[in-house]
Amino acid sequence: MNILEIFTTIVQIDSESGNEEKISVFIQNFLAQRNIEFSQEKEFQIIAKIPAKNKNISEIKKLMFCAHMDTVSPGKNIEIIIDKNGKITSSGNTILGADNKASLANMLLLIDKISKNEIENHHQLEFVFTTKEEIDEPAVYKLNIESLQSELGFIFDKANEENINTVVSVASSISDFTVELKGKGAHASTPERAINALEMLISFVSELKLGNCYPNSTLNIGVINGGEATNTVPSVIHLAGDFRSESPEYMKKIEEDLRRAQMKVLSAKKFKDANIDINIIIYCKGYTHNVNSPAFKNLEKIYSQLGYDGIKVLKTQSGSDASCFMNHRLNVIETFCLNDGCFEVHTVKEWTTIENLEKLQEIMQKIVKYW
Amino acid sequence: MNILEIFTTIVQIDSESGNEEKISVFIQNFLAQRNIEFSQEKEFQIIAKIPAKNKNISEIKKLMFCAHMDTVSPGKNIEIIIDKNGKITSSGNTILGADNKASLANMLLLIDKISKNEIENHHQLEFVFTTKEEIDEPAVYKLNIESLQSELGFIFDKANEENINTVVSVASSISDFTVELKGKGAHASTPERAINALEMLISFVSELKLGNCYPNSTLNIGVINGGEATNTVPSVIHLAGDFRSESPEYMKKIEEDLRRAQMKVLSAKKFKDANIDINIIIYCKGYTHNVNSPAFKNLEKIYSQLGYDGIKVLKTQSGSDASCFMNHRLNVIETFCLNDGCFEVHTVKEWTTIENLEKLQEIMQKIVKYW
Repeated sequence: MNILEIFTTIVQIDSESGNEEKISVFIQNFLAQRNIEFSQEKEFQIIAKIPAKNKNISEIKKLMFCAHMDTVSPGKNIEIIIDKNGKITSSGNTILGADNKASLANMLLLIDKISKNEIENHHQLEFVFTTKEEIDEPAVYKLNIESLQSELGFIFDKANEENINTVVSVASSISDFTVELKGKGAHASTPERAINALEMLISFVSELKLGNCYPNSTLNIGVINGGEATNTVPSVIHLAGDFRSESPEYMKKIEEDLRRAQMKVLSAKKFKDANIDINIIIYCKGYTHNVNSPAFKNLEKIYSQLGYDGIKVLKTQSGSDASCFMNHRLNVIETFCLNDGCFEVHTVKEWTTIENLEKLQEIMQKIVKYW
Repeated sequence: MNILEIFTTIVQIDSESGNEEKISVFIQNFLAQRNIEFSQEKEFQIIAKIPAKNKNISEIKKLMFCAHMDTVSPGKNIEIIIDKNGKITSSGNTILGADNKASLANMLLLIDKISKNEIENHHQLEFVFTTKEEIDEPAVYKLNIESLQSELGFIFDKANEENINTVVSVASSISDFTVELKGKGAHASTPERAINALEMLISFVSELKLGNCYPNSTLNIGVINGGEATNTVPSVIHLAGDFRSESPEYMKKIEEDLRRAQMKVLSAKKFKDANIDINIIIYCKGYTHNVNSPAFKNLEKIYSQLGYDGIKVLKTQSGSDASCFMNHRLNVIETFCLNDGCFEVHTVKEWTTIENLEKLQEIMQKIVKYW
């Protein structure tokens, strides 16, 4: 069994978010066949546990590896193409699914090696396989978190980074929001009887700064839908967007900006009978690692021992299950989000390489053996 | 046979725009059974012809009556409710379809009476039954117009007017338009890589005056749709709307305003790689009757003889088949759009009364006998 075999096998098991049953069953069988203790969790998630094997370990550490089993779409009937340089892509009609199956495959390979006694010594390990990571309600929050003993976690889910020794030091908080701008419709020929929701939209957005609204902070309105017919003054427009910041202060400021824009529009005389509903949903809270902590220094050592130039730290504005483990809903496993060697993820051009898959295995083995 | 019988019969034949076959077949049978000469026209339309019967007519006039057979939706399985005062409504789940079946029923009743020799004298008559009047591409344009001989036309299709002796003197032109605002998407966390289509929308609309933009002229953007996902800067937004004016000059001005807004947005540095497509479609051209013309004066006389206080003239910004007959595509039948005694049309509260249905018959008979 090698990494390419296991990777291509699981990539070909369709698992778009919300349809993870097949891959979950595959992994459960994989674990059962190797006599690995595991529990079935909510929403087809899995927690596998492996006791330490401590031939050469003085102190047993408790470490977690986590990967998500779901993919974005289009992720059905993925065909894998491997070129002569070892670059792996899909046929171009689907994503590749390397996000997060590059990591998933490596976790399975590691488990396989441990089960065959091919790894002489390792710490106590927990392997967590999550679902619905790619959508607004990641299932990780439904794990039986009490059963986890690990103090440190590793999630290889940071894509599009040139240096494979990249580690996220700061991840932004992300909040989703919806806005309903509710005026009053009327026939296009009698606009004076209407409260035009499009005019409300213009006023509302004019009060906001879209894009890079504060340092390392963004505000986006991604979806705009409204109006009933060509010949009707639009009565309702719906917006959906998100805002992101590494700073809790700016997160609060952006929320206040939205509320202020709401009040400003509604205070205008012509909108006095209108209504604006804003609904803000925390998608994930951000986190900041102390780059001088023993754990961060140890991570640096691990990569250095593998020949890398220490680690590259990176601030990110995208979410991962690491944000979930790091925030209040799933405290207190200090979890690192690490480069997964994948590129152009979430597109049909997604790619990785055999070399990168092998490097991940090397890094994972180094961690379990020598943390 | 009375007007209520024929009205309730045809109201119960579903005929939402694009599904007029059943009602067209019904009317063709109705005509055939009465030996009325008729031709089947494109899109289930019908032209029926009745020679003059001139016992008491010195000069034979050639007159057309026209009604559309289609209804807006929801117009399926209409249940009719008649209260003790003779008010006719649907059950409240559908439209009533009185638009335009109040007129249609009266035309059929008139034809029935003529076929039974119950009308002693009348002018030469053409009855035109059109389809798809309620949608953007009225089928009336596909009639074999050459076959029509009438010089004057009467279309009872102006609703929501208190006085049944209301006649449209000026009808606006209406043009529909669509706008595609095309920027460039990017992940919400990297807005600097995007050209935000929502920002283009704000700039574009800010250059326009929505609603009553010029005297007796309106501009409406009725439908606004765009964006791909909450976490993506929107790359494309689509707009659909219309503009209306009784003045060709203002119609031109509004079109120029749209083009100017387009150029203004695209001249901004941040939108230099963006694109805006505007597509303008003439829905109907307007018209203006000379209220001092012999025809208009004659109409006034007809209503006066029936006991009305002459006629009420009305400017309208809504379209009808009259606009089609009056404009270049179907010249040259001078066609009047008259009150149909119906209210709250295009809604599930639509209503008319038995009395109004009977008044329409009275007006129609007066026209065919004494124009």
